[in-house]
Amino acid sequence: MKKTIITVSREFGSGGHTIAKRVAQRLGYAYFDKELIEQVAENTGLHRDFVAERGEYAPSASRFAYAFISRGADGISLEDTLWNAQRELILNIADTKAPCVIVGRCADYLLRHREDALHVYIHADKEFRANRIVELYGETDAKPEKRLDEKDKKRRINYNYYTGRDWGAVHNYHLSLNSGVLGTDRCVDLTVAACGE
Amino acid sequence: MKKTIITVSREFGSGGHTIAKRVAQRLGYAYFDKELIEQVAENTGLHRDFVAERGEYAPSASRFAYAFISRGADGISLEDTLWNAQRELILNIADTKAPCVIVGRCADYLLRHREDALHVYIHADKEFRANRIVELYGETDAKPEKRLDEKDKKRRINYNYYTGRDWGAVHNYHLSLNSGVLGTDRCVDLTVAACGE
Repeated sequence: MKKTIITVSREFGSGGHTIAKRVAQRLGYAYFDKELIEQVAENTGLHRDFVAERGEYAPSASRFAYAFISRGADGISLEDTLWNAQRELILNIADTKAPCVIVGRCADYLLRHREDALHVYIHADKEFRANRIVELYGETDAKPEKRLDEKDKKRRINYNYYTGRDWGAVHNYHLSLNSGVLGTDRCVDLTVAACGE
Repeated sequence: MKKTIITVSREFGSGGHTIAKRVAQRLGYAYFDKELIEQVAENTGLHRDFVAERGEYAPSASRFAYAFISRGADGISLEDTLWNAQRELILNIADTKAPCVIVGRCADYLLRHREDALHVYIHADKEFRANRIVELYGETDAKPEKRLDEKDKKRRINYNYYTGRDWGAVHNYHLSLNSGVLGTDRCVDLTVAACGE
């Protein structure tokens, strides 16, 4: 069965964004990454910076990240509001916008029971990713390895909190690729080939 | 750089053995799986059944599996003797028999620093694997899920004990494939494609 929905989960600095975009272009699939942020911001009234950050990252890199966030009288935090809106949007996109590629935001989990979905994970060694984020985003006061650790940890906590699964666990994905070893072009080729006819 | 050594690690019942064999045939690479067992048995004088079993599986599915095995005065157990011989053989094969495909036996770890090696992990959902082992090996008194759990656990303990790494952790491999979703043919195609030109 040809896969008409591709979710791409990626480690920070792995180039997963570029790979996902090129896969969508190659296959002529719709592409959802930043587009999700705009739509969720519009649907919820939340600021797009908040949606961009908290849609994938926990408020802190502590395992208690979600214990101390503020909640309304109904127990619903802004983070939960965001999660619910993001979830609804992704389920809706899968139903109405396929064929498509969806980047990040726990889409692999949300669409885990769909037989028309291919779940892809892009990872790379820390050294490769550290060099890449310095090239892309420049130096900062924090060492690149530290920036990676914090980003990875926040993403892992967010994923685990909302899905109950481990982020980056091999069983969550159908195809996991080391972009540092395989290179961007080959990752695009392999993902396209994995979709089938 | 074309990958001339392919290591294939596989979950029990995932079909990784078949995939590895077909990749070797397609590429015209030498193939080492059972061949390793014969050679290690010959080099060490250990019985081939012991080599076949303990070369990949811990003595029991307990995390203390290696705590109570018997050791000689030099602290070397039969398991350690086997590990050392297997390690030496695999390093030697990589040096002298490439291009080649090597199945299991921590080869991904032993050859982790080689730039000419591609490390592949074949996994599948438990239901798929349970059905497959009943088809291949027939029913036994133990339920197939229980047989899988025990095999997986023994393999995980063996791998962790000798490598210090987690078996099946996505970062150990360059390419991880769900054979249940992708199918055998596509897993062969993807592995061949991942080797490059």
